[in-house]
Amino acid sequence: MAEGEAPAEPRAGRRRRLDTTARRVKARQQPWGRWHNALKPVELLSTDQIEAIHQATLTILEEVGVAILLPEARQILKAAGCAVDEASQRVRFDRHLVEAMVAKAPATVGLHARNPAHDLVLGGDEVCVATCVGPPNVVDLDRGRRNGNWADYCDLLRLAQALNVVHLNAGYAPEPIDTEIATRHLDCTLAQLSLTDKVPWTFTFAPRRMHDVFEMVRIARGVTAEELMARPGFYSLINTNSPLQIDQPMLHGIIEMAKLGQPLCITPFALAGAAMPVTLAGTLAVMNAEILAGTTLAQVVRPGAPIVYGAVGVNVDLRSGAPVYGSPEFVKLQFAGGQLARRYGLPLRASPMNTSPTVDEQAAYETAIPLWGILQSGVNLMLHGVGWVEGGLAVSYEKCILDAEMLQVMRAATQPLAVDAESLALDAIRDIGPGGHFFAHQHTLERYESAFYLPLLSDWRSHAQWKDDGAKDALARANRLWKDLLAEYQEPALDPAIREELEAFVARRKAEGGAPLLY
Amino acid sequence: MAEGEAPAEPRAGRRRRLDTTARRVKARQQPWGRWHNALKPVELLSTDQIEAIHQATLTILEEVGVAILLPEARQILKAAGCAVDEASQRVRFDRHLVEAMVAKAPATVGLHARNPAHDLVLGGDEVCVATCVGPPNVVDLDRGRRNGNWADYCDLLRLAQALNVVHLNAGYAPEPIDTEIATRHLDCTLAQLSLTDKVPWTFTFAPRRMHDVFEMVRIARGVTAEELMARPGFYSLINTNSPLQIDQPMLHGIIEMAKLGQPLCITPFALAGAAMPVTLAGTLAVMNAEILAGTTLAQVVRPGAPIVYGAVGVNVDLRSGAPVYGSPEFVKLQFAGGQLARRYGLPLRASPMNTSPTVDEQAAYETAIPLWGILQSGVNLMLHGVGWVEGGLAVSYEKCILDAEMLQVMRAATQPLAVDAESLALDAIRDIGPGGHFFAHQHTLERYESAFYLPLLSDWRSHAQWKDDGAKDALARANRLWKDLLAEYQEPALDPAIREELEAFVARRKAEGGAPLLY
Repeated sequence: MAEGEAPAEPRAGRRRRLDTTARRVKARQQPWGRWHNALKPVELLSTDQIEAIHQATLTILEEVGVAILLPEARQILKAAGCAVDEASQRVRFDRHLVEAMVAKAPATVGLHARNPAHDLVLGGDEVCVATCVGPPNVVDLDRGRRNGNWADYCDLLRLAQALNVVHLNAGYAPEPIDTEIATRHLDCTLAQLSLTDKVPWTFTFAPRRMHDVFEMVRIARGVTAEELMARPGFYSLINTNSPLQIDQPMLHGIIEMAKLGQPLCITPFALAGAAMPVTLAGTLAVMNAEILAGTTLAQVVRPGAPIVYGAVGVNVDLRSGAPVYGSPEFVKLQFAGGQLARRYGLPLRASPMNTSPTVDEQAAYETAIPLWGILQSGVNLMLHGVGWVEGGLAVSYEKCILDAEMLQVMRAATQPLAVDAESLALDAIRDIGPGGHFFAHQHTLERYESAFYLPLLSDWRSHAQWKDDGAKDALARANRLWKDLLAEYQEPALDPAIREELEAFVARRKAEGGAPLLY
Repeated sequence: MAEGEAPAEPRAGRRRRLDTTARRVKARQQPWGRWHNALKPVELLSTDQIEAIHQATLTILEEVGVAILLPEARQILKAAGCAVDEASQRVRFDRHLVEAMVAKAPATVGLHARNPAHDLVLGGDEVCVATCVGPPNVVDLDRGRRNGNWADYCDLLRLAQALNVVHLNAGYAPEPIDTEIATRHLDCTLAQLSLTDKVPWTFTFAPRRMHDVFEMVRIARGVTAEELMARPGFYSLINTNSPLQIDQPMLHGIIEMAKLGQPLCITPFALAGAAMPVTLAGTLAVMNAEILAGTTLAQVVRPGAPIVYGAVGVNVDLRSGAPVYGSPEFVKLQFAGGQLARRYGLPLRASPMNTSPTVDEQAAYETAIPLWGILQSGVNLMLHGVGWVEGGLAVSYEKCILDAEMLQVMRAATQPLAVDAESLALDAIRDIGPGGHFFAHQHTLERYESAFYLPLLSDWRSHAQWKDDGAKDALARANRLWKDLLAEYQEPALDPAIREELEAFVARRKAEGGAPLLY
């Protein structure tokens, strides 16, 4: 493939060029499975405090309002009873309308993959881990840092398919800037639907793009449009333009995704100290106002439209004005955001983001700390779950492996603990008595295989053993692991007739010139 | 100082040899302060499950009993009503005696430093961070890995004094094996009392050693023995010899620390799958039995003796038999252990331990994950809080800095979040309206200085800025930071008369030959 040219169809089997040994890494992972989080969420705020934020939010929506930059959206909201000032594009929301509309959004949403084994539910105690959204760069130890491109986009899809901790795709990681913008959504959707059989992602932007993705997912699933609306098959994210403003492409996203019945996450770019107040309570009130405004619009368009509460509050570094992810404020905003999502009965989106300028110890702890935080805030949709570094400006192959290990550990740590006669093991304890050893006892031998977590990346040998074996640090081991996973990668089966139909659709839409990025 | 020879008095000011610039790192840390954790602990087990473990524990203590290897301890327990079999050294505990005795242990214990600004409380919502216990090796980027020695022991005490996140000393990190065993406790206690003014640690072992430390702490505090007993000034830890066995030095520790009125943490070496059942519930029952047996002995010796519940459950790697720290099972045992400590109203000891064979990304995430876990289990005494690596076989200078950053972040993340009229900022939100910017608003400017956490180690600049500035990764930056902290280190003031008295005591006890390690 020439530089700058993207194939309409990703080629299978091209991973052979990687120098790897066949060690069947995939089989050494924890198995695929839906993640139910047994830990009750942290309640950092009292019920009264949450109610104070809720009331402040309604006051903001009623008195200050939100700038709604798409005429069509203003008309929809005006017809629903909002006060609209066309000159300022400002929409003021009656508090009762907001409460009534938000109550219509469902608490849980099914997400159906082309492989039913990869179906998911957004909501309840379920955690769905997705890949990164939007990194413009890509990095690994061998090839260094480079612009996002088609080859890396496809390889990272393959890696996401191979990693059992990844439940669904997000997009595009990295952004394949060597593909035509007008047809990028066609290329990227085809890649997701052929290189993976997990739930695909779409960007919103122009309505035509969402309709294209809808049609491709419909073909891949072999269902009717009605069936796809009833059993959603892809999802997206919009960012509001904080404070209190939603631009045209984002409003198109809200309206079209609602019409198409596919889940949409609404996440303000909630920069405390910049686009948001410097106080966390103020940031929460503005963030909440923007999410509820978008949710209200979606419910007016189509009652019951699935909306995910995108609680991602970030503070700025007041020395530079740059966003800071993974800070203590980030974690606290997350706890409170989770409480607000539960207040409204909406699924929660959150992300274990970090600000680290490279993949090192900082990237590791700055991911692990918010990862715990978001799990303890009740996250349902974990965007940026694997590979994120540099505040989202790059996706890293090695970081994907680091994150996969952390996620595996956290998933195991958030499972229930059995306490019953068998697990209390009184007979074995009586048998062995003081000073004995359980290692060779029947009670142990019967449970040997599956008793404890086995790591993917972590090395649990002694320093001496580790040193004798080449002293490979975690990054070097991660480098080996992603190469092995790609070497072992097998493209998931796709009915040839469906593949043909998808390719024909892409070819036709490309011949028509694709679709504009915006509208 | 010649190899193998330890000075009675650590020399002040010897840090000058380090090549550093005076950047006043100490002042860039978060300030010293007691840590109150606003997060309610995780309740992974139901009340019924906790009760099932409690009842199983009492059955074990009553039917199986515990091997108590010190005749004096058996006599004490026999006099209290336990059934003692001298041939097997087995002591069986009446369940009502256990419940009555455990109820006598206090829920909170004050720990008083020679500098009252460094006083602490073990219990309630307070988290006290201590240094490592017992690493035989020490490592840093410049000098590599080496045996524990006196110079590093003193430097790591200086670093612990300089780090505001460290609340109290533990010992010895690293073990100064170039000092005489018979007088090591004298050297190490003098170093703790002169190089730091934080609460010191003692090992238990022979009673004479604990009496020496008691006397030195009494001198340093300038109080009577009665005053030191009423307001404890040092603490220790014993490990039981699981399963269901406590050896002579550990029993001396329980008896003497109870007599001296100083807090003692009882921590089984709870290796699930080896010394303990492979099932976590079984491990919890045996661990709990050992802690309650030791607590019962302490309360019989002296009702109200302060005991810390040492819930550290570790699984073995069933491939090798080696202990695994930081695993999912470790975290789950921690949650349950915290629930048991609360069941008995005892302060909780826990540790963010890792198994990583070197200080790398694994060490970072394998520390951050259990760190969250132990905070969410309600830890009060955090042993091994800074510097631990290699499953405890080494203490690392750079890891001390990594851990200090993580602890600073977690401390800030576990504080309450204010929600009131000022923080909701409705006036500022009205002022600025849609599409505006809060950065230059009065509401922001008034809070600019202290609004957000500022890091010690983390680099929050862009990849380009970081690269232009030399691309120093987190380990390289940690290396610079500990050197700067040691260069800036100032020995805390100590009354010359007290210093003289301490030195005279040490000289006299050295002339007497010190004290045996055991008895």
